[in-house]
Amino acid sequence: MQLISIEDVRAAARSIAGVTLRTPLLPCRWDDQLLLKPESLQPVGSFKLRGATNAVARLSAEQRARGVITHSSGNHGQALAYAARKAGAPCTVVIPDVAPTVKIEQVRALGAEVVLVPPADRLTVAQQRAAEGGLTLIPPYDHRDVIAGQGTAGLEIVEDLPDVDVVLVPVGGGGLASGVATAVTALSERAVVIGVEPELAADAQESLAAGRLVTWPEERSYRTIADGVRVNLSELTLAHLRARLDRVVTVSEDEIRAAMARIVRESRLVVEPSGAVAAAARLFHREELPAGRTVAVISGGNVDPALLAAALG
Amino acid sequence: MQLISIEDVRAAARSIAGVTLRTPLLPCRWDDQLLLKPESLQPVGSFKLRGATNAVARLSAEQRARGVITHSSGNHGQALAYAARKAGAPCTVVIPDVAPTVKIEQVRALGAEVVLVPPADRLTVAQQRAAEGGLTLIPPYDHRDVIAGQGTAGLEIVEDLPDVDVVLVPVGGGGLASGVATAVTALSERAVVIGVEPELAADAQESLAAGRLVTWPEERSYRTIADGVRVNLSELTLAHLRARLDRVVTVSEDEIRAAMARIVRESRLVVEPSGAVAAAARLFHREELPAGRTVAVISGGNVDPALLAAALG
Repeated sequence: MQLISIEDVRAAARSIAGVTLRTPLLPCRWDDQLLLKPESLQPVGSFKLRGATNAVARLSAEQRARGVITHSSGNHGQALAYAARKAGAPCTVVIPDVAPTVKIEQVRALGAEVVLVPPADRLTVAQQRAAEGGLTLIPPYDHRDVIAGQGTAGLEIVEDLPDVDVVLVPVGGGGLASGVATAVTALSERAVVIGVEPELAADAQESLAAGRLVTWPEERSYRTIADGVRVNLSELTLAHLRARLDRVVTVSEDEIRAAMARIVRESRLVVEPSGAVAAAARLFHREELPAGRTVAVISGGNVDPALLAAALG
Repeated sequence: MQLISIEDVRAAARSIAGVTLRTPLLPCRWDDQLLLKPESLQPVGSFKLRGATNAVARLSAEQRARGVITHSSGNHGQALAYAARKAGAPCTVVIPDVAPTVKIEQVRALGAEVVLVPPADRLTVAQQRAAEGGLTLIPPYDHRDVIAGQGTAGLEIVEDLPDVDVVLVPVGGGGLASGVATAVTALSERAVVIGVEPELAADAQESLAAGRLVTWPEERSYRTIADGVRVNLSELTLAHLRARLDRVVTVSEDEIRAAMARIVRESRLVVEPSGAVAAAARLFHREELPAGRTVAVISGGNVDPALLAAALG
């Protein structure tokens, strides 16, 4: 399987400039070796905008005119709707009919067409619509252009902090970790990229240990509060992680909640549970990590206000 | 009275680089002509770090060795403690003995010496200690180096968005508004800087209308939720605002609360009430403002978690 290269990431950086935000590195009062990269500040509140914007930019003019479609109602769906609108491309998002109204309205507000279907039909309806309408299906992580786009976060980290030692990234489907590990290991001789997962959704750690794709069923991975990282790797992301990721460490649910509270109170960022996972590793598993200047990627900030209030309480 | 110049702001920018964060401009989903400048992301959570860092940088080696002192227990006190520690200078913060323990501990955690006094004695104790110990008193806004430091936020705005039309800044003591108005009007032919105050602390609007310093007593200005902007202008800041500020608009308490909720939910920033004042003007008083590309300065994010939770509820 051919992996993406640093040149793919560099090309992505050129393609997404002007749509995505170049997020700063924020020092932490509680740890003078730690910096946060707040992808929660992207226009739709997560790093997913990088990959979606790059995937849309790579389309031919004809593909762009026909439009894009996806079956993710979460951060990727919003990111694709935003990226498509910026590029003047029609966008369809297939959403399970059990989704909260607020999520549906957010996608519509970004100008996308929403198709509501029973949860089990999501993928097939998206594929069918794509085939019928000539739409391009852009999946949330199992796609080279998406991975290259996510890698731009790693490119920025090394540009802004050339002597970085450790980069911590959350691992869900593995698109962010694959892209960031590609960029960081290509640009720095010294830095390692370490993935972080909830103990309750540790399919990537298990897959890397087994040397093959191990998938966890939903009833198992859906126990974690970190809804953004419940999904499994794909063969494509696993191949990137095997080649370029140093290792995966896991964090508990209490550690995720405590990291959320710390980030909200002391770094003044609104963070979703998945967004706090990487910082949780540095806060609570420091002995498992290499020493040195560390960047934790805060992957997103789309959190239910009630959950945020609870983390503060 | 001699006003600071753009050269003072440029010099300040060189002095503070490496201590303060160059904050990005964040697009807003709810208003495509509005960008937020999140000073809440500075290491101590407010723009005050700019002025404090510049004031410390301007000290002679001997002054720095003797140390600095201030009588602000709020954002300026924390900013000065942080800036002094970064410069290796001793710092004393005089705090009223009625202040919440958490505030006292935050200042101590930054390495400063805390002197607790009855509220009415704050200024005199600070002056006395400064005289006795040869310490340099750095006030929160009535100081040219502090104003020049705050102006670096304006410098960054014009550098990052050369075609900006309107810059909205909260006005408390007027240090931020004085510095930003100095920088923006010097660097842009077209841009205007507009101050924003709570209706319940509109001393700057009244002073500008009267053409002289009008001060509001505490029992009047302390009614606003926006604790960071309850203070009055000084002669120095009034002179800057008369020369360089376009005007002041006011916002209500409900508008401040609604702007806080909007910023937390949709821009994913933790914001204090004073930090939401400028965005509130754009949200609720658009007809009083010039059209065009607008930047609202989010001045700080040090908010009581209970107040934040209430704004979300």
